[in-house]
Amino acid sequence: VSHCTTERPPETIAIVGAGVVGRGWVPVFARSGHEIRIHDPSPGQLESARDWIESFLLSSPAVRGHSPKLRFCAHLEEALQGATYVQESIQENLIAKRDLFERLDRLCEAGTLLCSSTSSLDINDIATSTAHPGRCFTVHPFNPAAVLPVVEILATRAGSGTTTERVAGILRRAGQVPVVLHRFVPGYIGNRLQAALMREALALVDAGVADADAVDALLTHGLALRWVILGVFGTNHTNADHGIREYYERFWGSYRELIGTLAVETPAVEGPMIDAISATLEKRFGNASIPEIARWRDRLVLELRKVQLSTLPPAGTAG
Amino acid sequence: VSHCTTERPPETIAIVGAGVVGRGWVPVFARSGHEIRIHDPSPGQLESARDWIESFLLSSPAVRGHSPKLRFCAHLEEALQGATYVQESIQENLIAKRDLFERLDRLCEAGTLLCSSTSSLDINDIATSTAHPGRCFTVHPFNPAAVLPVVEILATRAGSGTTTERVAGILRRAGQVPVVLHRFVPGYIGNRLQAALMREALALVDAGVADADAVDALLTHGLALRWVILGVFGTNHTNADHGIREYYERFWGSYRELIGTLAVETPAVEGPMIDAISATLEKRFGNASIPEIARWRDRLVLELRKVQLSTLPPAGTAG
Repeated sequence: VSHCTTERPPETIAIVGAGVVGRGWVPVFARSGHEIRIHDPSPGQLESARDWIESFLLSSPAVRGHSPKLRFCAHLEEALQGATYVQESIQENLIAKRDLFERLDRLCEAGTLLCSSTSSLDINDIATSTAHPGRCFTVHPFNPAAVLPVVEILATRAGSGTTTERVAGILRRAGQVPVVLHRFVPGYIGNRLQAALMREALALVDAGVADADAVDALLTHGLALRWVILGVFGTNHTNADHGIREYYERFWGSYRELIGTLAVETPAVEGPMIDAISATLEKRFGNASIPEIARWRDRLVLELRKVQLSTLPPAGTAG
Repeated sequence: VSHCTTERPPETIAIVGAGVVGRGWVPVFARSGHEIRIHDPSPGQLESARDWIESFLLSSPAVRGHSPKLRFCAHLEEALQGATYVQESIQENLIAKRDLFERLDRLCEAGTLLCSSTSSLDINDIATSTAHPGRCFTVHPFNPAAVLPVVEILATRAGSGTTTERVAGILRRAGQVPVVLHRFVPGYIGNRLQAALMREALALVDAGVADADAVDALLTHGLALRWVILGVFGTNHTNADHGIREYYERFWGSYRELIGTLAVETPAVEGPMIDAISATLEKRFGNASIPEIARWRDRLVLELRKVQLSTLPPAGTAG
């Protein structure tokens, strides 16, 4: 038996845009041993990213033990030199992204992948400014990317399965879980699911059914405990003795009726409602700062991941 | 220093209806040392509940180590004798529940609490058949109740805070997390949140954006990892540097726009769509049976709960 192991060489990753999203990518690529360059046209933003990365990020449990090969670049050209993968993370503005992609396409080598962190824009619209839309992708992370591994990938209509697999492979090697979408919808999948839950949660608080803490308790001590293991379809599957076909047969009628009663109007999120929601959260977290709460969240998510990854779903014994 | 500990005497719980929901209550009340009687008018149903409880439930990690004081009662009167708390769990039918509550109210002692597991009916409508609506409550569990601790409580308009607290206390002592609703809405909170997520998830699959596995991956490796710790409001709170007020200021505009694009029609769940969803689930779980998957889920949820309960949210250090 002969094994042929192809050890892939590390990538050179250019992160363009050093705000919250751009910084969040640093630990993801750092832990896979890739070279990282980070650029922002604003020297202040770049400096503040350096402070944040050095004081907070490198001590976070998500990167501990890795010393990233990281360079802060004042000039875009410097960041792009030899880059094999670009992760664009500037503000959500079509004109600005189009303009940047035109430059990326012009300045990068032919094989370089050009990926956008956009969560709302269509990569097909962004890539119109380039001569090579086939190498342009949406690669949308969730906050914080180093602890929430899922990423949404969307190729342009000019993209190929092979190039998409190259993008997914780079992210997989960095510990992420890539999910490939077949076509664009506003908000992609994740933010749409989140928006759907927000709409109903806000409507329930608005209607005085319960306060924000009660709604969150239904998730933390109930629904989300199933979703985090099975998702929503997997949950339906295990809520009938013989699986999802039986579930739909028995329960879809009442769910269809219930769905007909859900909020369709967008609730007004203003003055008194924000005050009330804010008050319940202040009661829950006392005077803990957001970074304190976020560190607590990250530690817990990493522990939950360990439990989640400690076991595969059962695949049956007879086959 | 003198401690005055009032050890509460165990309750006598009558579970009426021995289907999936009724059986699910057994381990919950069993682990708190309460006496339990379970009744079903159908001898077959009662026998099948006995088999299930003896062969599966008592070996489940959620009850292990507790030997329930459990009696199977062929007659309603026998189950209710000396009961301090009744958990009605028959089919979701207003006429049947009204009829049963009339009998419960007539047969039980004055102080006995009469609780319904209903997930869709208004307890105010059920209690019209009784002379004492103030002791009638909805106490709605999630499946499986012994591992998903949240319960929704709704008093009737005749109910008092003191009686509601008595119900909540009994459930809390049994290891549940009671959430009190202020008024009735169809599906209460939990099933509405679930229905909102199902509507958008089904619409995304229906529109060919991605398959059921991809949608579930967004939850298991992303969104639900935050929701299980923070809920949806807590997640928004930690997604801006200064909390939820800043979050709404900065992001509500784009969320409102996104919400405007969400599914409002109820997707048609039929033939080819069910086939496609079913196929992805069969691929995920091979030929594992639903009870095998459910046992795996329960073990994982209990481990997640341990992580969740190992730490309180930070409450700040300054005061």
